Amino acid sequence: MLSQEQLALLFSNARTHNEWLDKPISDEQLHAIYDAMKWGPTSANSSPARIVFVKSSEQKAKLVACMSPGNAEKTRKAPVTAIVGMDMVFYEQLIKLFPHAPDARSWFEGNDAVVESTAFRNSSLQGAYMMLAARAVGLDCGPMSGFDAEKINAEFFAGSNVKVNFVCNLGYGDAAKLFPRSPRLSFDEACKIV
Amino acid sequence: MLSQEQLALLFSNARTHNEWLDKPISDEQLHAIYDAMKWGPTSANSSPARIVFVKSSEQKAKLVACMSPGNAEKTRKAPVTAIVGMDMVFYEQLIKLFPHAPDARSWFEGNDAVVESTAFRNSSLQGAYMMLAARAVGLDCGPMSGFDAEKINAEFFAGSNVKVNFVCNLGYGDAAKLFPRSPRLSFDEACKIV
Repeated sequence: MLSQEQLALLFSNARTHNEWLDKPISDEQLHAIYDAMKWGPTSANSSPARIVFVKSSEQKAKLVACMSPGNAEKTRKAPVTAIVGMDMVFYEQLIKLFPHAPDARSWFEGNDAVVESTAFRNSSLQGAYMMLAARAVGLDCGPMSGFDAEKINAEFFAGSNVKVNFVCNLGYGDAAKLFPRSPRLSFDEACKIV
Repeated sequence: MLSQEQLALLFSNARTHNEWLDKPISDEQLHAIYDAMKWGPTSANSSPARIVFVKSSEQKAKLVACMSPGNAEKTRKAPVTAIVGMDMVFYEQLIKLFPHAPDARSWFEGNDAVVESTAFRNSSLQGAYMMLAARAVGLDCGPMSGFDAEKINAEFFAGSNVKVNFVCNLGYGDAAKLFPRSPRLSFDEACKIV
């Protein structure tokens, strides 16, 4: 198991960052994040997340124009911004991803409600795996859901079956500029054991 | 950052388990999981996940009756099964959880589409935090989305605003009974850097 210090790196000491140090992220670091997160569990190993790591200033400018005003400047400044998308025809990959059940595609195809909830739930799980993997390799995260989804889909996923789920800045956060930490619900407020 | 071995504990060596050793989980371990996962980021710190940890044989029997046939026996055998729910009026807690924006409740209340996507996305993120926290404290997970949601809501969340998102067995997996591991998409199949 992990030590308290290692747990703190992932959870209690990790913060959502809004200000970024001027320090780049390498493509190798992005590969290291994916090579960890890809192993996280998804329904029928469906792995619906599709990620665009936006790094160039040209593509970043296109993305910044899709963000809510309050999310624009931090997105511009982050060395990389991940667009976490979901493949709405993820079931086409199941013959490869879930080979022991050759009929797995038929569990989803044509059942729009199940396709949508499976894509949304599981790409969200994978987005969380991405954020914790990023922290595990020493980076900070700044997830955001304030953006124009149709505009992001048009700019980054045109001609595909992928739709944006959420967006997350990645980089080295400027700890000096953190807000005070907000409280969390207690165990008894959020959980029970029966 | 974490070592390769520690990353492997969370990701590459961790497996979804279907068979469980006869070894209990303590309430202290469940508290340790929550005390880590609660710090994971959510939109406006909304923290919509509500978890019922089902441990007693009486409550477990009620839950098993809600599961799909293929998920029943493993749910019966797991020492604890977590029902990850989502509070559909999570915005009532924002005055406490997001105190620096006293109007945060108004961003959600009455906007059903935003409430639903926020609750679903963020309780899914928190479910992923829960699974990785469980692995971090030495446990194994077996997440499932095959169940009768209306029946679970009636049995475990009646009279509340909470709805089930997904269900996850927790315990010490029997590694001898694992299936061969299914493949994952390559970086280039799932990601791009632009």
